[in-house]
Amino acid sequence: MESNPINLPEVVAEVTAVFARYEDALVNNKIDVLDELFWASPHTLRYGVGEVLYGAEDIAAFRQGRPSTNLARTVLRTVITTFGRDCATANIEYRRAGTLAIGRQSQTWVRMPEGWRVVAAHVSNMTL
Amino acid sequence: MESNPINLPEVVAEVTAVFARYEDALVNNKIDVLDELFWASPHTLRYGVGEVLYGAEDIAAFRQGRPSTNLARTVLRTVITTFGRDCATANIEYRRAGTLAIGRQSQTWVRMPEGWRVVAAHVSNMTL
Repeated sequence: MESNPINLPEVVAEVTAVFARYEDALVNNKIDVLDELFWASPHTLRYGVGEVLYGAEDIAAFRQGRPSTNLARTVLRTVITTFGRDCATANIEYRRAGTLAIGRQSQTWVRMPEGWRVVAAHVSNMTL
Repeated sequence: MESNPINLPEVVAEVTAVFARYEDALVNNKIDVLDELFWASPHTLRYGVGEVLYGAEDIAAFRQGRPSTNLARTVLRTVITTFGRDCATANIEYRRAGTLAIGRQSQTWVRMPEGWRVVAAHVSNMTL
């Protein structure tokens, strides 16, 4: 019955690596990498702190229009969990430089023929 | 290469049904159903509007301590997407009765031996 074993080490290693690549791209505003790592599909969605975006095209357009400064952040806690070989979640708490708010970023990753891709994401600040 | 076909109708039907059961349990504060539908694991996590909860036990304790009133909400938009037979995302925008804020709820669902379970969730209000 264990059809979706949790945290197979080789799968965790894969997702950890691609997640690190995403984080590097985010803080350094490597838009091409961010676009690459979000699934190129109208089903992809991203709930941001102040926006809701449906479809890879709207997500890419948002990134193009975003200020490229003050993207640095400190990751406070990371939880990556994998389910079988093709599905994973990556969740972090973070603090952006110069702010006190606790940010939370949740991503669902799926292995596509082209590689691991974010299929849904949610970013918010915790309300105190 | 299509190892994880998107939105197989029978899988979408399964997830839609269990998601509806979750929503009904939430607005009617059926805590036993909510506890049942979150994966019983220390890996489960829930980022709420004003809290971060790690592990099914902490999530269950939060529900026990939560006021059981004013849980009604109107779902504004729902996107359920399935990946293969064992992995799905369910995302909604909603408005709670008597408020103007747009809430967003993201869940990752995985088929476990015991049934479909939420393995990670994130709830927030959009900042305007």
